[in-house]
Amino acid sequence: MFKNLLNLSDLQEEDVLKLIELANNFKDGEVAAYRQENLFPDKTIATVFCEPSTRTKLSFELAAHNLGAKFIDFDLTNSSIQKGESLEDTIEAMAMMGVDVCALRHSSSIIHDLAERFPQMQFINAGEGSVAHPSQGLVDLMTIQESKKSFKDLNISIVGDLDHSRVVRSFLEAIALVGYSTLTFCGHPDLCTSFVDTPVGNFEPDLSAAIQDSDVVMALRIQNERLESKLTIGAADYIDRYQINVDTLQAAAPDCILMHPGPVNIGIELDKEVLELENSKIKNQIFNGVGMRMAILTSIFSQA
Amino acid sequence: MFKNLLNLSDLQEEDVLKLIELANNFKDGEVAAYRQENLFPDKTIATVFCEPSTRTKLSFELAAHNLGAKFIDFDLTNSSIQKGESLEDTIEAMAMMGVDVCALRHSSSIIHDLAERFPQMQFINAGEGSVAHPSQGLVDLMTIQESKKSFKDLNISIVGDLDHSRVVRSFLEAIALVGYSTLTFCGHPDLCTSFVDTPVGNFEPDLSAAIQDSDVVMALRIQNERLESKLTIGAADYIDRYQINVDTLQAAAPDCILMHPGPVNIGIELDKEVLELENSKIKNQIFNGVGMRMAILTSIFSQA
Amino acid sequence: MFKNLLNLSDLQEEDVLKLIELANNFKDGEVAAYRQENLFPDKTIATVFCEPSTRTKLSFELAAHNLGAKFIDFDLTNSSIQKGESLEDTIEAMAMMGVDVCALRHSSSIIHDLAERFPQMQFINAGEGSVAHPSQGLVDLMTIQESKKSFKDLNISIVGDLDHSRVVRSFLEAIALVGYSTLTFCGHPDLCTSFVDTPVGNFEPDLSAAIQDSDVVMALRIQNERLESKLTIGAADYIDRYQINVDTLQAAAPDCILMHPGPVNIGIELDKEVLELENSKIKNQIFNGVGMRMAILTSIFSQA
Repeated sequence: MFKNLLNLSDLQEEDVLKLIELANNFKDGEVAAYRQENLFPDKTIATVFCEPSTRTKLSFELAAHNLGAKFIDFDLTNSSIQKGESLEDTIEAMAMMGVDVCALRHSSSIIHDLAERFPQMQFINAGEGSVAHPSQGLVDLMTIQESKKSFKDLNISIVGDLDHSRVVRSFLEAIALVGYSTLTFCGHPDLCTSFVDTPVGNFEPDLSAAIQDSDVVMALRIQNERLESKLTIGAADYIDRYQINVDTLQAAAPDCILMHPGPVNIGIELDKEVLELENSKIKNQIFNGVGMRMAILTSIFSQA
Repeated sequence: MFKNLLNLSDLQEEDVLKLIELANNFKDGEVAAYRQENLFPDKTIATVFCEPSTRTKLSFELAAHNLGAKFIDFDLTNSSIQKGESLEDTIEAMAMMGVDVCALRHSSSIIHDLAERFPQMQFINAGEGSVAHPSQGLVDLMTIQESKKSFKDLNISIVGDLDHSRVVRSFLEAIALVGYSTLTFCGHPDLCTSFVDTPVGNFEPDLSAAIQDSDVVMALRIQNERLESKLTIGAADYIDRYQINVDTLQAAAPDCILMHPGPVNIGIELDKEVLELENSKIKNQIFNGVGMRMAILTSIFSQA
Repeated sequence: MFKNLLNLSDLQEEDVLKLIELANNFKDGEVAAYRQENLFPDKTIATVFCEPSTRTKLSFELAAHNLGAKFIDFDLTNSSIQKGESLEDTIEAMAMMGVDVCALRHSSSIIHDLAERFPQMQFINAGEGSVAHPSQGLVDLMTIQESKKSFKDLNISIVGDLDHSRVVRSFLEAIALVGYSTLTFCGHPDLCTSFVDTPVGNFEPDLSAAIQDSDVVMALRIQNERLESKLTIGAADYIDRYQINVDTLQAAAPDCILMHPGPVNIGIELDKEVLELENSKIKNQIFNGVGMRMAILTSIFSQA
């Protein structure tokens, strides 16, 4: 199906549908049963995370355990990187030693060059600056399908710090492969410079207008430091205009679902109350994350 | 038997006796045999330690390996906690992803609230401020039984920084469940404010008097910084009055055993020489720690 | 064969030859097959690295996984070492808890004392100050044999910061066991004080003269800070006189191989171009590292 998972735009529609189907099978199955089946005892995956992570790394670790693969959490802080070694040389050493798959998170886009230079290892893009986070894009698609049954003809609003979001970029690649939906981008123009004028959707600076009749509202994390450094309006004003709360969601379609890739900055982009709504699917996204990473690893392992 | 292990006061006498029996079976058995048996390949335990640890964390890790369970050493320093995520959200993500058991160490008492909020995961209290350390309380009880055959009618002296000791609090809950013994607390009054006047035992500020005819002397760690910050006497004076050495132990019963939860501050609460005494059971406590954690995990895993 | 691997001088020639043979078998075999065979499910190895490492630690981790052993990456920074516990007490706790093998890297030579004090655990010296790095010595020998078929009658030049190199010291012990070769040491006299006058080889300060007719050129890492602190000549001058590049290598035998234990300080001890030469065996050393560590663990595990 695919050797590396770098960008979702490299995949075909059928790849995505197969991954979601496989992920659903894993999700609905008995975890205990998978763990006992020990599907890939001969495979090794190493995570190399140059930026902090909880959900993504942990879900790859659990996926590896559930599939019976060996898991290496490569610890950069005690590695030869401390002696001045480059990340490239570290990754090469890993490839030479027989690690099968490397899941890399990095602030820059080095993964593409690494994947080309070290073809003996397979790569999963586990977060590339503000550019891509393909496994999360697949989780989001899977979560939408779970609630909406289809990916087509949905009104999807994406709200928040779009410029810095790798999640939104991978989601746009994902949705482009599988269905036609109406996309509305919303956020303060200072944080949406690349989305104010884009052919893939409409930009709507007013939150209520953006959410009007939405089937899916996808909120994005805004980092506290950006509230101060990137915005020409104050934090309180930002929250007042862009925070999603129970009231704002009234404008959406009655069965509208709320999503967020996590970790949520409670009280900033989302009000605490909305987390408990029945239509909040944020926990489902976390839960689905493990099944989707099991599906991705299964595909990658089977490809070698 | 029990779903979570939060406090020993939640257990019944028969629970404690069963755990000790099981731990003894593990301890006396062949480790290699358990490892090959692979008892719980479908279970995952994650340690989340917000305070440093060697013995407790390592003994849970070895217990998990010995039982064939998957082990995740969750690394807070590279997690989304760095992005400002709360520990609660981190624990929730873990629970959503299918981690079966979380062994948590924290300076405050948040574990009780977490266990209530996330019933899909089981919790082990691996150290709660100065309040509780139940697995250590069970290890201590097991070590006493090993030497004394019974828990009843013993003279037990507990010496040192009692106020800050979670070990002593869990031990008191443990001994209260299984037997009647005479408890004597000893230490500088500045470090024993909660024990100077307590119904569960006698306070005796003089070390020789406290140790007189003891069957068990349990020494506690005193942190160097407390020697300076909490005491109205100097460190040299403290050591002179409260350090346990070969001479002091002469006053105890001839077969008195010496215990310490580790790590020992050699030259402070214990003189180096007493570590080598035949009646020092400090190494047994470390050894028993693995068997007891195997027993705890076996109970917890079987309960789910 | 051997209980601990502390120094190569403790081994016999036949031990070394057997290890290389075993390592070659592992190297040439199917990794997937070994992983599925699960050879040592009852063994536990812990790495305790008090200095940074990528290759050595990772190769022990992969070797453990390939052999089906349990692997513990002991994290000093979150351990009781932070509470002031000594490394000795940490290692003792590990031994008491049933860890079978400890692979220790430390800036000083404490491993010998620890191995004597805690005979219930086996020790592998994974780097001892500037003194010893026996597993690397074996990897280097294995890599030479791979290209040269024999260890005897070779001209071997060792170039760089010899004084601070544990790699060269273990290699000298290794080569002394298995064959007679002519050894030439080369480097700035400030960094070769122990090698200017030694019975085991010749010192030659001129790089071209040292490399003349060499069958093996072994380059060593020079740490950037030493370029400034230890040298009476400037860094640029040092590079000019001691950097190995394609031109310098012309003087060597036509089938001369180039080795380096890694990580390479590119542009300092080696020019970038030489890494891509067919006769550069630096990647082979990394690859062979896993097979050799599998051989070492197999011997150690079988010895217990």
